Amino acid sequence: MKRKKKIAIQGLVASFHEVAAWTYFKDAISVVECLTFHGLCECLKKEQADYAVMAIENSIAGSILPNYFLLQEYHFSIVGEVYLPIHMQLLALPGVTMKEIKTIESHPMAIRQCSDYLHRLKGVEIRESDDTALSAKRVKELGLRTTAAIANELAAKRYGLNILEKRIETHKKNFTRFLILARKGIVADSNKASLSFEVRNEVGSLADALMTFKEANINLTKIQSIPIIGKPSEYSIHVDVEWKKRKNYDEAVQRVLRQVKNLNILGEYKKGKIEYN
Amino acid sequence: MKRKKKIAIQGLVASFHEVAAWTYFKDAISVVECLTFHGLCECLKKEQADYAVMAIENSIAGSILPNYFLLQEYHFSIVGEVYLPIHMQLLALPGVTMKEIKTIESHPMAIRQCSDYLHRLKGVEIRESDDTALSAKRVKELGLRTTAAIANELAAKRYGLNILEKRIETHKKNFTRFLILARKGIVADSNKASLSFEVRNEVGSLADALMTFKEANINLTKIQSIPIIGKPSEYSIHVDVEWKKRKNYDEAVQRVLRQVKNLNILGEYKKGKIEYN
Repeated sequence: MKRKKKIAIQGLVASFHEVAAWTYFKDAISVVECLTFHGLCECLKKEQADYAVMAIENSIAGSILPNYFLLQEYHFSIVGEVYLPIHMQLLALPGVTMKEIKTIESHPMAIRQCSDYLHRLKGVEIRESDDTALSAKRVKELGLRTTAAIANELAAKRYGLNILEKRIETHKKNFTRFLILARKGIVADSNKASLSFEVRNEVGSLADALMTFKEANINLTKIQSIPIIGKPSEYSIHVDVEWKKRKNYDEAVQRVLRQVKNLNILGEYKKGKIEYN
Repeated sequence: MKRKKKIAIQGLVASFHEVAAWTYFKDAISVVECLTFHGLCECLKKEQADYAVMAIENSIAGSILPNYFLLQEYHFSIVGEVYLPIHMQLLALPGVTMKEIKTIESHPMAIRQCSDYLHRLKGVEIRESDDTALSAKRVKELGLRTTAAIANELAAKRYGLNILEKRIETHKKNFTRFLILARKGIVADSNKASLSFEVRNEVGSLADALMTFKEANINLTKIQSIPIIGKPSEYSIHVDVEWKKRKNYDEAVQRVLRQVKNLNILGEYKKGKIEYN
């Protein structure tokens, strides 16, 4: 029997990170829960997991910049990505009806994500927690009959809860992008890469680098400047690029290497699909 | 006697937003406290304030993307900016010594900012609150002798607290950038602008626009792509640009207008200075 791959996730079992892990790996995996993103990186570094799943950006909340710093610090390889549509469900103990609910609890981000729905409710107290899955777990384990949790479908299954209301999220097409990290990894047939580099705060320094990608027929799917702490005259750029021909990408990187400082290839991988449902 | 300008800030009096307001306006102002960024925009829109101060990015935490959405939604003009070094102090009631402190409370971001200092302490409980200034206020008003608040110097003054430990922040050169917003505003002698536009997810669409700025000798100080929710094949770009000659900027904008979609001038203003101390 094949050994199951060990996947480190941020948060508890049944968090969106676990859903992202299953979406990417498909076959049997065993999940290692990590309390923080820093803990997630330590877990991968200390070989307590084969891969780590890390949320990196959300279409509403934006980039999780501290995770970009972690990527730089730990020098892991990005070997894949998952775009996960974020749907929220209202979960309660089996048999409980909406009328009995006095408190709704979840992660602050999930609460904000469901603000339209929550504003329509009256006389219900909203309480914040550290994790959507944690709220679901609490409702079950403490037998809280008057509390509902906002979490995903997997949490309903894992913790034996009932879905009181389906898809209560305000923005139906919100997604979170997760990166799949390995200590070292080479992906065959990659068609996307994440790069970082530094440019001087001077006219055209970035335009020149982007022109190189254009001339090589390389498409940019993300760009972001990040101030370098303590160096207001320089900044760091993160780009994600996609290509049809690997040769074009290799040539572009060789040329960009001469135009910028401290070029890092954070990973080369197959691009994920955004599928709304 | 001149009427004081009314400035809406996010958070309580003595929050970093109030410090930013004083740094920018220098002369006498009266401050209007707003609980959320959304409330801040409503306050300005309803003419309950002449200006609003809004944090937009931090050198460690990154851009506050939801505030970019608010800028788009409310169509205010950015008329200025302030870069504020973020220093954290540990505040307690006068006469209280470090040995008596059992709890330290502050905003989660401030707590994270002081993680190195907090890790060295033993047997102290860390508690999260909604605002640094709120924590300081609570310590004072409730007379909490065993609680210290992490907040700024202004909070010590405003709430009559003692600074137990100075500058406990981990990163000494961290700053937050605040925007000064008006309902409508034209700034004489501006030398910086914030623009947004949309480009198709195609090779070179962004490089061409940046090349136009380069050719006009316009310097980019920030760039960020933002996914357009529900339109994975397009994205929105925010740039901050600086110029020496206004004419160059005007010409560049005219040309970029023909290269991109939905160009918005979010504001033209004088660039702020980053001064570490």
